[in-house]
Amino acid sequence: MQRYFLPENYKENQTYSLVADDFHHAAHVMRMKVEEECFLVFNHQETIVAKVVDILEDSILLEEVRKEATQKEMPYAVSIACGYTKGDKLELVAQKGTELGMSELIGFPSKTSVAKWDDKKLTKKVPRFEKIVKEAAEQSHRQTVPSIRLLSSQKEFIQLLATYDHILVAYEESAKSGETKSLVKTLQAVQPGETVLIIFGPEGGLSPEEITLFEASGGILCGLGPRILRAETAPLYALSAMSYQWELL
Amino acid sequence: MQRYFLPENYKENQTYSLVADDFHHAAHVMRMKVEEECFLVFNHQETIVAKVVDILEDSILLEEVRKEATQKEMPYAVSIACGYTKGDKLELVAQKGTELGMSELIGFPSKTSVAKWDDKKLTKKVPRFEKIVKEAAEQSHRQTVPSIRLLSSQKEFIQLLATYDHILVAYEESAKSGETKSLVKTLQAVQPGETVLIIFGPEGGLSPEEITLFEASGGILCGLGPRILRAETAPLYALSAMSYQWELL
Repeated sequence: MQRYFLPENYKENQTYSLVADDFHHAAHVMRMKVEEECFLVFNHQETIVAKVVDILEDSILLEEVRKEATQKEMPYAVSIACGYTKGDKLELVAQKGTELGMSELIGFPSKTSVAKWDDKKLTKKVPRFEKIVKEAAEQSHRQTVPSIRLLSSQKEFIQLLATYDHILVAYEESAKSGETKSLVKTLQAVQPGETVLIIFGPEGGLSPEEITLFEASGGILCGLGPRILRAETAPLYALSAMSYQWELL
Repeated sequence: MQRYFLPENYKENQTYSLVADDFHHAAHVMRMKVEEECFLVFNHQETIVAKVVDILEDSILLEEVRKEATQKEMPYAVSIACGYTKGDKLELVAQKGTELGMSELIGFPSKTSVAKWDDKKLTKKVPRFEKIVKEAAEQSHRQTVPSIRLLSSQKEFIQLLATYDHILVAYEESAKSGETKSLVKTLQAVQPGETVLIIFGPEGGLSPEEITLFEASGGILCGLGPRILRAETAPLYALSAMSYQWELL
């Protein structure tokens, strides 16, 4: 069943409207008819099943049928921070990371980043990433759309670190030296209401200076198993491991 | 450090040769010189660090320095079976699945497969997939290259099922109904020497008839968390969860 995100707070006993892109999608791609149902997701993860009551020229009107029963979100908010990578790898992380439950995607310039994204380029990129995560959130039945922050300086990123309760740093050298306990230990220690940030380097990895900076801000180095994962694969491993630990185990 | 797979059994105190594509890569891409080191991986996961002793016109000769110390392979052999998907999604699974530790990738025609791959097309596809997994195995420091089986009939696939010790079936309806225990229970029950197969549908999912067939062959339906994962994302979740359970926990 199709899913639409409405950027408004949920209020009971209202008529809700799909407009603009969502209207176009519902009317012309899904060809929804009166009485057909879809999910509507409001701010604060509130989600209902709604049915179409009227189709106007530029909006579709819906009314609530029932609340969505299942919790679809990770029990803890997980932010994924990636040093800027080449090509469209960060877009893959945006799409797959949304499916796998991340709350936020942060891009930052890392020492070894080959891709140089200036402010102008970043401003252009944000709407593109927002579209990717919105579509992936609809498809994967999320109850919230991940937020996107594409930073233009590493200083800005370092300042942000103080706002997270747990910071993990996926470090290739930790994986190589056989470090296996930090990820498990951290995931098992997270308490309700706490936030987790996990930092990944670009293709060239994180530099020793960056590792020092992240550790000084409370970052814990961790390995993600004995194999060497590409820059865009490591975040998917981490999110899957989090889901397994928190949602299945 | 670069890694090359030699399709031969390891013998001590030999001179080893890189030829053909590997020679080209070592000589012209990596520009290796005498005394430089790389990994050589033989059959049965035997891996050594070797150094270049001579560079000839069409081969590079190497000698052993030491054995590779770390175990890089999953403790149990995991086969990933995917109903044929559209576009290059199966190639993404081949590459990322290799990084994440799979032993074997099986493609099979599923009821809802839009992509129809006939024998002729499959025969052409195999070398392409073999190249993808070989390169990914080198990059991710595997000690074995996953094998590729692209089947042209579902019957052939069903016959294959009897050869695995544990069969999991990733089923969207299980995820939707909140099934959370089967994956954990199966992963925790695997014994040394046993094999695991996990089956994934194409974009349209597995049909009820297919589910019945797989269950009759011993398949256990499992959910992979509360979100709906795309066809190409689900195998990456499963492999990451396996690594977390078996290699980190």
